[in-house]
Amino acid sequence: MADTEPPTATAEQTGELGPSKSELKKRAKALEKEKKAAEKAAKQKELAEQTAAAEVDYAKEFYGSLPLNQSQSRPRKPRAEIASLSSRAGETVLLRARVHTSRAQGNKMVFLNLRQRTDSVQALLVVTPDKVSKQMVKWAAGLAVESIVLVEGVVEKTQELIKSASVSDVEVHVSHIYLVSGVDGRLPFSVDDAGRPETAVEVEGQQYNRVLLETRLNNRVVDLRTQTNQAIFKLQGAIGDFFREYLTANRFIEIHSPKLQGAATESGASVFKVSYFKGSAFLAQSPQLAKQMAIAADFERVYEIGPVFRAEDSNTHRHLTEFIGLDLEMTIEEHYHEVMEMLDGLFIAIFRGLREKYKKEIDVVRQQFPADEFKWREGPEGTLRLTFKEAVDILVESGVPREDLDDINTENEKKLGGLVKAKYDTDYYIIDKFPMELRPFYTMPDPEDPTLSNSYDFFMRGEEILSGAQRIHDPALLCEKMRGKGVDPDSMKGYVDAFRMGCAPHGGGGIGLERVLMLFLKLNNIRRASLFPRDPKRLEP
Amino acid sequence: MADTEPPTATAEQTGELGPSKSELKKRAKALEKEKKAAEKAAKQKELAEQTAAAEVDYAKEFYGSLPLNQSQSRPRKPRAEIASLSSRAGETVLLRARVHTSRAQGNKMVFLNLRQRTDSVQALLVVTPDKVSKQMVKWAAGLAVESIVLVEGVVEKTQELIKSASVSDVEVHVSHIYLVSGVDGRLPFSVDDAGRPETAVEVEGQQYNRVLLETRLNNRVVDLRTQTNQAIFKLQGAIGDFFREYLTANRFIEIHSPKLQGAATESGASVFKVSYFKGSAFLAQSPQLAKQMAIAADFERVYEIGPVFRAEDSNTHRHLTEFIGLDLEMTIEEHYHEVMEMLDGLFIAIFRGLREKYKKEIDVVRQQFPADEFKWREGPEGTLRLTFKEAVDILVESGVPREDLDDINTENEKKLGGLVKAKYDTDYYIIDKFPMELRPFYTMPDPEDPTLSNSYDFFMRGEEILSGAQRIHDPALLCEKMRGKGVDPDSMKGYVDAFRMGCAPHGGGGIGLERVLMLFLKLNNIRRASLFPRDPKRLEP
Repeated sequence: MADTEPPTATAEQTGELGPSKSELKKRAKALEKEKKAAEKAAKQKELAEQTAAAEVDYAKEFYGSLPLNQSQSRPRKPRAEIASLSSRAGETVLLRARVHTSRAQGNKMVFLNLRQRTDSVQALLVVTPDKVSKQMVKWAAGLAVESIVLVEGVVEKTQELIKSASVSDVEVHVSHIYLVSGVDGRLPFSVDDAGRPETAVEVEGQQYNRVLLETRLNNRVVDLRTQTNQAIFKLQGAIGDFFREYLTANRFIEIHSPKLQGAATESGASVFKVSYFKGSAFLAQSPQLAKQMAIAADFERVYEIGPVFRAEDSNTHRHLTEFIGLDLEMTIEEHYHEVMEMLDGLFIAIFRGLREKYKKEIDVVRQQFPADEFKWREGPEGTLRLTFKEAVDILVESGVPREDLDDINTENEKKLGGLVKAKYDTDYYIIDKFPMELRPFYTMPDPEDPTLSNSYDFFMRGEEILSGAQRIHDPALLCEKMRGKGVDPDSMKGYVDAFRMGCAPHGGGGIGLERVLMLFLKLNNIRRASLFPRDPKRLEP
Repeated sequence: MADTEPPTATAEQTGELGPSKSELKKRAKALEKEKKAAEKAAKQKELAEQTAAAEVDYAKEFYGSLPLNQSQSRPRKPRAEIASLSSRAGETVLLRARVHTSRAQGNKMVFLNLRQRTDSVQALLVVTPDKVSKQMVKWAAGLAVESIVLVEGVVEKTQELIKSASVSDVEVHVSHIYLVSGVDGRLPFSVDDAGRPETAVEVEGQQYNRVLLETRLNNRVVDLRTQTNQAIFKLQGAIGDFFREYLTANRFIEIHSPKLQGAATESGASVFKVSYFKGSAFLAQSPQLAKQMAIAADFERVYEIGPVFRAEDSNTHRHLTEFIGLDLEMTIEEHYHEVMEMLDGLFIAIFRGLREKYKKEIDVVRQQFPADEFKWREGPEGTLRLTFKEAVDILVESGVPREDLDDINTENEKKLGGLVKAKYDTDYYIIDKFPMELRPFYTMPDPEDPTLSNSYDFFMRGEEILSGAQRIHDPALLCEKMRGKGVDPDSMKGYVDAFRMGCAPHGGGGIGLERVLMLFLKLNNIRRASLFPRDPKRLEP
């Protein structure tokens, strides 16, 4: 291009005043700078070409062809798990992992911290004649953090424990390294920064970037890569497993009920409206009606794990517009406490399971979210059960005016949690016998005092995590209670008819999965317990 | 009231012509009829009072109070399972069950067929001095079918097997019977009628009412009580269990992704629009985007069980607007066949599990829905895999014009199923290497032939039950393919950005739970495999 461009006139050629000495000096400096930049660019280009060629060689050696990303060949060389490396000293392994950090030492050596989920290991690339070239080391040193690489190397015992890696007694001496997936653009924050406690911006005298929740959620894919989040969602899955395991052992079967409903039902609460062909539908705010109908259809004991939708415009730390409901419903033989005790047994099974099988993950989360260990009562004394009246008395005793306690609001709930913890040393308890007027129309009234109901809430760290009750299975009583709450029984004909065709006494409850996870770990915001949370202001990512 | 009403003049009193002889006869007859009706009503009333009193006595004896339906007391007398009765001859048991049929023999004896889910037993109530009164027997004989009763009685070995009951070697000699829940109104159909094959309206010379699918679905709660439906939904739960069990053993974790999306995404297919506060949201037509983002977030291997929504206005035997997706996604080490083989192993595990652990339920369903046993290949030959091209060749060979086979439509799919069954004796097979233009934008092209793709469908009895592929993890290639299908990458920024931040090669698939259930059992309509099905015309119950 430069050859064909017409020469441009300089100030000197066009006569006028010549440049000053300082101006000349400036120009010389600028020229020098340009020259250096051009040299640097040329060097970088050359290096890139060399490393690209090297990359192809390495890849061919590994795969027989390039690129691997379209499934060109299948040499069947298994990849190693970082967690397994401690026991594999001396072996040559093939490892796919993220570059968590990279640190060059001179131009002959580079240290990589390689990460897989909650595990990491140190890898070392050293210039070695006929094996690892200088370019290769330079190229490796320039790899963007969060790139995914495939490395081949020998696992070697280290002299000293490597504090920065979770597998600290070995490191990998890399002979080959290949880029599987690079990073295109700038990371919104480093995974290291995202893994630090949000309150601690200074660690051992060093200042770090604080990553705000909003920023995390906007870039959730990167945020989820922290060891903390990897552990949190492993624990979320575990809660689901323990839930199913306990209920299967107790003869429950899993059902799936439709989330699209023909009418905006249940207790008149806010529901989302859906355009349904030429008409409308509504998103279920719980599987309540369906699971009761499953009982009327003789399924005896059912559970469901699925999304529930709440169109409430509240941006609190504990509300989502979409969350996962762990719901169950069962027939009652004699008394609704059978259901309450089944639910209690279920929670104990979940708590025990987490403590016994997921200590590692809980400890990982604790590092970012410090919290007292979650406490519950076991053995002969069992779970603490208070009646609503007893709960109110405890609050009154502590100074809350009784006239404020027709219902226990969020603030008083939290306060009660503190009082109960102080008095009974438990983070988990049940409140039974709620006033009838606080509960939905389908709640069974207490047989002796019609102002009370056969209903209960379960609490963790002073926050409600389950609401449940015996339900009305008698159609006449149900219709009466519906009318009392301003619901027209004809608007829910399919539901009411289910009981007209004969239905056993039954009860159940609904658990918020994200709440259990948030409160067990004390994450302080429910969004942290949801993979891609939804609230009135958030529908992405 | 009669006392205060003014007497009305009769034709006789007002003079005119007297009544004819035939007229008088008629009147006498009518009077006689009225008298009889009044007597009958009085008797019924008396009987009702007596039985109500008797009911109270029985209930008090059982519970200490009445009614039991509000949890008045808790005597802790366990209820027996009908299925367990064969081994309990001689014992006195307490049993809650439906009255499936009732047949009085004279006025001293009544036979009840009592039902619990897939099990039934004969119960016998005989007038016995000081124990079972004549009224009690009469009252029991009058119980509506589908009422729920609690009976106490002795389990006795029978002389002959009772063909009408599933537990046929014992019967229950009832000493007490109590109504737990009655039937209010007319049953839409009998559970017995609903349990018969829909094609067979004549069984052993007797005509029966055929219950149409539409009628069943309108009254789903009663329809679901058939032994067939109890078995179908036990099998549905089992498929979910086997799915999770297999994937957990293969280091997958369960995720839950939001069904509410900010944009109508994926391949431009029809989605449901939701009113979301002051804006709009859309229902996810699959967890595709979320599970890929979970891979970009390092979860490695994820699965999800949840509702997927399809706003397609098609009322076929195999489409629902809401169904349960069994979805999985995993990273690839070398080749996308790793994913295909994982999915194949998963299906074999499900099929085996059903055959080995649920023979009883499968046999129950067979009685109403006769079908050849589902066949698949195991052992060294393994699952049949055809390429798309090979599948087309098979169809061409059988006479389908090649020019009709750019895609394989439903009719040809079915035809292929038949040809494959005839040739390879399997109901289950895989078609690999679909043409790129038939697949969504995120599908990875074949490295050697860009008109083909690294994608596959799985089939059962000639119908597609899974669609899957390797996905594009390279953001540049992804954007190119999006534009090629008319999708603006900016409209899916969160999704594309996930790959910009580095993502391992990966693939997966989505299984329709109801389809697997329908095809394994050959139920012929997907609505039978959904608890409360949703289609363009059905949002209730």
